Amino acid sequence: MKGIRQLAEHLQISTGTVSRALNGKADVNAETRRRVLEAAETLGYVPNQAGRSLRQGRSRTIGLMLSHDSMVGGASDTFFPLVINGLQEALSVHSLDLILLLCQRGEAPDDFLRRMVAQRIVDAMVISSTRLEDPRFPFLNKAGMPFVSLGRSHSATADNRWVDLDFEGIAERAVERLYQHGHRKIAVAAPDTDVQLAELFLDGYRRGLAHCGLDYDPDLVFRAEAHEQGGYAVGQRIIGLRNRPTAILLNAEMMSVGLYRSFGEAGLQPGRDLAIIAERESPVGRFLLPRLTCFRLDPIAVGQMLGKMLLSQLPAFADLYSDVPTTKIWPMELVEGESDPPPEKQSGLL
Amino acid sequence: MKGIRQLAEHLQISTGTVSRALNGKADVNAETRRRVLEAAETLGYVPNQAGRSLRQGRSRTIGLMLSHDSMVGGASDTFFPLVINGLQEALSVHSLDLILLLCQRGEAPDDFLRRMVAQRIVDAMVISSTRLEDPRFPFLNKAGMPFVSLGRSHSATADNRWVDLDFEGIAERAVERLYQHGHRKIAVAAPDTDVQLAELFLDGYRRGLAHCGLDYDPDLVFRAEAHEQGGYAVGQRIIGLRNRPTAILLNAEMMSVGLYRSFGEAGLQPGRDLAIIAERESPVGRFLLPRLTCFRLDPIAVGQMLGKMLLSQLPAFADLYSDVPTTKIWPMELVEGESDPPPEKQSGLL
Repeated sequence: MKGIRQLAEHLQISTGTVSRALNGKADVNAETRRRVLEAAETLGYVPNQAGRSLRQGRSRTIGLMLSHDSMVGGASDTFFPLVINGLQEALSVHSLDLILLLCQRGEAPDDFLRRMVAQRIVDAMVISSTRLEDPRFPFLNKAGMPFVSLGRSHSATADNRWVDLDFEGIAERAVERLYQHGHRKIAVAAPDTDVQLAELFLDGYRRGLAHCGLDYDPDLVFRAEAHEQGGYAVGQRIIGLRNRPTAILLNAEMMSVGLYRSFGEAGLQPGRDLAIIAERESPVGRFLLPRLTCFRLDPIAVGQMLGKMLLSQLPAFADLYSDVPTTKIWPMELVEGESDPPPEKQSGLL
Repeated sequence: MKGIRQLAEHLQISTGTVSRALNGKADVNAETRRRVLEAAETLGYVPNQAGRSLRQGRSRTIGLMLSHDSMVGGASDTFFPLVINGLQEALSVHSLDLILLLCQRGEAPDDFLRRMVAQRIVDAMVISSTRLEDPRFPFLNKAGMPFVSLGRSHSATADNRWVDLDFEGIAERAVERLYQHGHRKIAVAAPDTDVQLAELFLDGYRRGLAHCGLDYDPDLVFRAEAHEQGGYAVGQRIIGLRNRPTAILLNAEMMSVGLYRSFGEAGLQPGRDLAIIAERESPVGRFLLPRLTCFRLDPIAVGQMLGKMLLSQLPAFADLYSDVPTTKIWPMELVEGESDPPPEKQSGLL
């Protein structure tokens, strides 16, 4: 952890120049600015708040809006905390602080956002848990508040910036992998809400089926809550089918815990009796038996990208981040587990 | 969700009186204030921010400081999000908003807190993840910032207010329950950091042993990371012992996922080959096979209590909350699972 003085010593320039560069002042040339920024990242610069005047007319604070669901349903893994860390890293280079705004249970996300913007606690926003139609996009556009979103939406305009995971891509690849393992009856489980990611995942699933020449069967699409209880319900429904699928894609990895239990109760074995591929690598998935096959990404890098996209929209920093893409679909890498063994290790279901 | 008008209609008093009562003004008599507050809670009052002037000299915002560990290690359950909801419910009655301040990886919590206080974003603080010696207590006391803590510390003064879970009590009861099931070699796993709760849990464990006339054996105390990987490591160490414990208490329920896997890999069965009682009920624990025996509490009620304790320290609201206790050790209730079956269902280890 270094301060301005250490950065100045390292770069052999004045502390004033370092400070002006970090605060996005115009009187620093672009090359120096870039060097300061790079050093701040490499050396782990932490701003000394006491040394700069408070507020400066702006709060220098960025708000991240989280829904209750993203904490409770999806909280069962480390994704959001690590995204948040990446965001903080990108913002702290410029002495910007991140605060989390957690929408209350029972309060509409749109009302909550309106209140937060009205209170002017933050200079800019990061939103998440985007829905198919999401009024937060037109609201923030109209309010003139800079923002980025983790997640796409039909409501986003061409000017809005976002990062989203490659939900279509992973669903498509998961279907193809299962097909190559010999599966012909492949199910999918996705959240039963209007979150954008569920639609993207189902799009990819259908595309994968089409590539493999398999028919889309709506009876193999299970909508359920994106956590343990939902997975348990899906498992019970599958067990009750006369003609069971031999494989399933889970849009939310925490569903696997409930799915495993429902199979265990019925004397069936996940992996052997039902091949499973889940969306995202998580600590729980790594320690389940059989270990989940899933997709990996670096949430810290996602957070850093979101931070840079946001900085590129703030006048003081825009020219430092002119090379940041405006939108990004984040690729994910398959992590082979034990839950989708090759067919010779599966039971006689195929 | 009601506004001031609906509350006024319900109570048959003026909207001005309702507003003054909610904002803690002195010219409302105590009985009316109490009725307004009660109605606001019962009817689910949500303040309309647009209707009141911004800032009013104060931010009307309360900060909850979370550590990275409390999100990542403990995030694997729903505890913090629900505590946060309870807090928000208590604060929103008075139009106070809660924001989350997440300490960055690699930044000392004390430095982070100092920055946050210096920036004056918030009027009051809630801190969590307390350590045995925790400099945040003297710092906040000296800074004159009202605060409450979720968790005890040796650094707390008699004036400081806190809520903490009954870690000693549950550890003691878990030992006694296992003893009654016939266990004589009872191990314990606790976090390997200086968090206060680990010490309290171990104190209760020792007290439970003493009550049962069992000797304390330091070789049966496993210190490990409070999540899946830590539980896996503990499992492997136990499996490698010549003379294994027949039961274990886990201070962090997410350890169970790793512990289960290590036993499964070795052809052993949790519950049958090692009785397990974990600290806190969680969605994961409910769907593990065997289901975890653990302790339950209402995190929303904990959050509400923290909120009321905080309000009792803010001059505008103090007289409304004069009956709130200054400290509270929160009781927890045993939830019988399948992971500590009575001895006749365990294998020949006893």
